[in-house]
Amino acid sequence: MRTYEQYLDMVNDTIARLALPETPARLYQPITYTMTQGGKRLRPVLTLMATDAMGGDSALALQAAAGVEMFHNFTLLHDDVMDRAAVRRGQPTVHRKWNDNVAILSGDAMLTLATGLVAQVPGACLAEVLHTFNRTAMEIYEGQQHDMDFESRNDVTVEQYMHMIRLKTSVLLGCACRIGALIAGAPDDACQALYDVAVNTGLAFQLRDDVLDVWGDPKTFGKATGGDILNNKKTFLLISAQQLAQDEDASELRYWLTEKKVMPDFKVQAVTELYERLGVRQRAEQAIDTYTQRALDGLAAVPMSDEGREAFAALINRLVSRDH
Amino acid sequence: MRTYEQYLDMVNDTIARLALPETPARLYQPITYTMTQGGKRLRPVLTLMATDAMGGDSALALQAAAGVEMFHNFTLLHDDVMDRAAVRRGQPTVHRKWNDNVAILSGDAMLTLATGLVAQVPGACLAEVLHTFNRTAMEIYEGQQHDMDFESRNDVTVEQYMHMIRLKTSVLLGCACRIGALIAGAPDDACQALYDVAVNTGLAFQLRDDVLDVWGDPKTFGKATGGDILNNKKTFLLISAQQLAQDEDASELRYWLTEKKVMPDFKVQAVTELYERLGVRQRAEQAIDTYTQRALDGLAAVPMSDEGREAFAALINRLVSRDH
Repeated sequence: MRTYEQYLDMVNDTIARLALPETPARLYQPITYTMTQGGKRLRPVLTLMATDAMGGDSALALQAAAGVEMFHNFTLLHDDVMDRAAVRRGQPTVHRKWNDNVAILSGDAMLTLATGLVAQVPGACLAEVLHTFNRTAMEIYEGQQHDMDFESRNDVTVEQYMHMIRLKTSVLLGCACRIGALIAGAPDDACQALYDVAVNTGLAFQLRDDVLDVWGDPKTFGKATGGDILNNKKTFLLISAQQLAQDEDASELRYWLTEKKVMPDFKVQAVTELYERLGVRQRAEQAIDTYTQRALDGLAAVPMSDEGREAFAALINRLVSRDH
Repeated sequence: MRTYEQYLDMVNDTIARLALPETPARLYQPITYTMTQGGKRLRPVLTLMATDAMGGDSALALQAAAGVEMFHNFTLLHDDVMDRAAVRRGQPTVHRKWNDNVAILSGDAMLTLATGLVAQVPGACLAEVLHTFNRTAMEIYEGQQHDMDFESRNDVTVEQYMHMIRLKTSVLLGCACRIGALIAGAPDDACQALYDVAVNTGLAFQLRDDVLDVWGDPKTFGKATGGDILNNKKTFLLISAQQLAQDEDASELRYWLTEKKVMPDFKVQAVTELYERLGVRQRAEQAIDTYTQRALDGLAAVPMSDEGREAFAALINRLVSRDH
């Protein structure tokens, strides 16, 4: 096993060597722009870690790992068009820097390139790797559609929210691990067990993101807090609050969700206080603990090297911790 | 070998059995809407024909053929968003019937579904089939980007136009045939020879489309003529005319290309007459004959059954003929 930073270097090195064509420039420049903005590279690192931990050789998983990262970046690129997002990783989004058509088409190309990279695995596991990858992609599109459908709904339940983030966020962590395990030639139940570990980790990870968006330190969180509250984003916190709030609390929450002429800081502060009063922060922390524990319990049962298990456990704890 | 209509039935039957999930409705309904609008199904029929003609069993190529058709429909769906097209096959386009976000996301899902279908081939040819499919997809995106880049250029050459339509239209016919041949287990040079036949056919086919858009009979062509002229679309005809026109002809062509306040019928009639005076129609017919002959000469050298060769030759002649 290598360290996270070593796996990160392997991923960045593989991405740097992709050697895309130069023309047509408006097709390929946005891809290079997107892929060289960095980021945690969590998903491809998971693929490489899984391969090594399951007794395989991560050198055989480099292209597939890069493909998983390319796929993740493709979904962000198209999501940014759909959400009209202006900034990603501190830089203008592709549809802002170029235009919508460039973002649509270069995103399509990234999906095809991602599939081509993921297909560069040993022949023995090719069909199953592709099947995992394509099924996961469909789940992610379903998650994105649910997320967009939620915007115009006021009856979303916590259960539906958890289903949505499982699809939109968690299954790709599962897929990344499963592909790594398949490349290592691990038996199917081991691949599935590691997949489940990563999915539970992903759920805790996303809930942590919801919590940090309200209570995080902007310096360590990497972006301004309060964005979800200002956008009335249906997170675990808002949905729980809607469920729990009664009488005056319910009226106040409705007020902040519908009133357009409010001072942003006032709204963030008031809704945060409401969340604390209703105890939704504790609920979120409890849910994070539950999913984290499921991930760690599952990990204990996955057949892998001790070193691999320690590395996964350390990463899980880091991902769900309070200050990442 | 079966008839075109029999292969068409096999394709439509396979597509009807795809059994997509019902929810989220806004993800899957646009896919069913798009896939059940019919059309010639030329590409999947080519796949099935190629498999049978090369001594294989087209029953093993059904999913891959449906995948090629799904991919083709995905490109049309996203192209319609980029071109702001309102109508496709006599029906509202997906982005008009739903909205842009639905069109982007359901298109993405079609690309993934297409890849999953294409991957349902015998394991022995899987890697090569996928490689062909992914490479072709990248070429098609390049062709679409060139086509969009051409809109704002006035120096496009006939050579660049032919390169663009090769990428945007022809290579998918080649890919469809090559995948069919690979499923039949044909040797690589035979697969490549059939690919070249289909690419040359595709070039002639697209040039015929350019000609029919000006001189076709709207009853048999299936859509109103003159659209390319009204939109100043850079076709073989317009590019050739710009190259050939001198003095007064050049001034007149410039007038029709730049003047906004013109009666549509007048513009179509005047530009059509200019094309005839400059001889660009003959040039297009000559080019069609050249590419058709290359396709037929190539076909003679492809190792396949006599029955297969006759079926391909009949189809090529039908595709490039004057009144399809």
